[in-house]
Amino acid sequence: MTAPRSISVLGATGSIGASTLDLVRRNRADWQVVALTANCQAKELTALAREFGASVAVVADESCLPELREALAGSGIEAAGGAAALVEAATRPADVTVAAIVGCAGLAPTMAAIEKGRTVALANKEALVSAGEVMTAAVARSGATLLPVDSEHNAIFQCLSGNSIADVRWITLTASGGPFRDWSLERLQAATPAEAVKHPNWSMGAKISVDSATMMNKGLEFIEAFHLFPVGVERLRIIVHPQSIVHSMVEYRDGSTLAQLGPSDMRVPIASALAYPARMNTPCAPLDLAAIGELTFRQPDEVRFPATRLAREAAVAGGAAPAVLNAANEIAVAAFLDGQIAFTRIVQCADSVLSRGLPPPPASLDEVIAVDLEARIRARETMEPVR
Amino acid sequence: MTAPRSISVLGATGSIGASTLDLVRRNRADWQVVALTANCQAKELTALAREFGASVAVVADESCLPELREALAGSGIEAAGGAAALVEAATRPADVTVAAIVGCAGLAPTMAAIEKGRTVALANKEALVSAGEVMTAAVARSGATLLPVDSEHNAIFQCLSGNSIADVRWITLTASGGPFRDWSLERLQAATPAEAVKHPNWSMGAKISVDSATMMNKGLEFIEAFHLFPVGVERLRIIVHPQSIVHSMVEYRDGSTLAQLGPSDMRVPIASALAYPARMNTPCAPLDLAAIGELTFRQPDEVRFPATRLAREAAVAGGAAPAVLNAANEIAVAAFLDGQIAFTRIVQCADSVLSRGLPPPPASLDEVIAVDLEARIRARETMEPVR
Repeated sequence: MTAPRSISVLGATGSIGASTLDLVRRNRADWQVVALTANCQAKELTALAREFGASVAVVADESCLPELREALAGSGIEAAGGAAALVEAATRPADVTVAAIVGCAGLAPTMAAIEKGRTVALANKEALVSAGEVMTAAVARSGATLLPVDSEHNAIFQCLSGNSIADVRWITLTASGGPFRDWSLERLQAATPAEAVKHPNWSMGAKISVDSATMMNKGLEFIEAFHLFPVGVERLRIIVHPQSIVHSMVEYRDGSTLAQLGPSDMRVPIASALAYPARMNTPCAPLDLAAIGELTFRQPDEVRFPATRLAREAAVAGGAAPAVLNAANEIAVAAFLDGQIAFTRIVQCADSVLSRGLPPPPASLDEVIAVDLEARIRARETMEPVR
Repeated sequence: MTAPRSISVLGATGSIGASTLDLVRRNRADWQVVALTANCQAKELTALAREFGASVAVVADESCLPELREALAGSGIEAAGGAAALVEAATRPADVTVAAIVGCAGLAPTMAAIEKGRTVALANKEALVSAGEVMTAAVARSGATLLPVDSEHNAIFQCLSGNSIADVRWITLTASGGPFRDWSLERLQAATPAEAVKHPNWSMGAKISVDSATMMNKGLEFIEAFHLFPVGVERLRIIVHPQSIVHSMVEYRDGSTLAQLGPSDMRVPIASALAYPARMNTPCAPLDLAAIGELTFRQPDEVRFPATRLAREAAVAGGAAPAVLNAANEIAVAAFLDGQIAFTRIVQCADSVLSRGLPPPPASLDEVIAVDLEARIRARETMEPVR
């Protein structure tokens, strides 16, 4: 084995952070842990920092720092707290920096690691959805490497290995179609939060489950793919694949299509990013296609599921549009989960916020966050008249 | 565009040769044709040599040389004939040498190009089935590059791009299962030559169609894969996939599987080999998985189709075994097509020739050819008592 590689995990106590550290734990000798961060889970973060012998542990919420400091006393592990400390930890030299903080809170540390030209295993959706243009400009300036961790984007990244993006004819994102893929429009109108959070293939939180049910998750992934893989919107498409075994595909101009397949376990794409360009072991079971039996594919239906059309339009519009779409969708999903609006109103709400005119293109993270906040306010206003 | 690349096509008038030259024709400015060879089709070869401005045209059968010479008179294209001329043409410098001569006649020129360290786009099955150990030893000595043209092996080659063979958990060859895949053993015993030559997905000659029906084609491809991709026989397997859309797959130790998909058109794998490591245009239609709808997979049934078991055993045995299997199978297939033996006797015949003891491992092409000839004689003997 080669010398250990160093790793920082921003968002160590979340789902992607836990899967990442599970892999590090199983390949302990190969890794040296630099920074681990959390929002405020001082106890959990302390346990991880001690287990992995991290150099520094950071809580984003400074009010949790005293608890962290006390828990780490005598460990030799540095404790820090607050936004500036988070950014400082994100910029520490590491062979790979896993950006797994959820939401806009992840933007600044992710950006800081990118600006240092690091190799960033990217799991924060907002980085490429809300701040796509700002973030990719920073990547271009710094020469940072983005390794997508999302299963679809990681699949595309793998299918592009050894190939040139100029030779791509199609990039096809697969979509499970969500729990309502066979529902009529009438039935969709009456869909309940309880029905929406039951995802057939992945176990996820409520918000992302609803995004899967509306297919807005695929719309947002479309926007991420648009920024990650510059083939142009007309070469990017979505196909419904209910079994979620094929995670995405790339077709080349010679007629060859490469597809990546695997179990619905985030440790597979995370391992692919961590070990890139090599491979590392995971405990995931081998793929048994004979046992699975069949893989099916169909065109998405943008009449019943208009979210992907809306996202494609936002990607083409660029500027503030994707950030507005993302923020408005979050507010609408929360309202749906709270019983305030019907399921089919979620995407309609995002659509009406988008069509009321856009703020100027954000040129910095601060401007992205301002666009996000303003869109949330407007989304709440949009929903009020229909209550 | 970059400077034209030079190409020689050994077996220019056959099916792979025609598909290769079709691609060269469509990308004329990118290619400079060095040598074109045929067995004896002087008229056809002349037309191709003139169209592509080849440096030399060679007929393997020296008796056809006068006709070739006359037809090429005044063209400035060199005409040559016979085994030595064929080998000489195969060794001429070219960026890629397409080895597409069918049968044992292709061994010597293929070997000659390999010994010169050329990049060989390999379509001759016997090179890796009958002469696998001799050929791969020559590749190791000369540093030649083998680019597999067979759709399955080309798929595996593409799925390995950017990856290390040491990280492979499984290489899975897909098999259509042939026209009899759902037939009972009883029905198979009565299968006729006319039924066997109807292949569901590919249009092929009679011999290879029968090989598809017995699944011996997949057995022989297994032996080729065994030599091309040194992962060991225990990491190589076959899966039945009736639609023939997925051409093969590679699973890595992290749980990621890469698959190559495409139309049943040999121009796709040929283009992949010709343009390697880049890509070139083909006229093949894009893959429409939504229109295809479903891809199915099942375990092979080696009770009804024992050919793949036999081939795996021959690969493990090594030495003369694969050459004996291939030769005995050819004789048995000819006897079946001639109405002399039952369909299920084809593989039984190959099995009994193999189990009667093997000659020593061939150490040269001459010894491979001697093994082949002897196995044909023994296969004929084997069949006689049961007529």
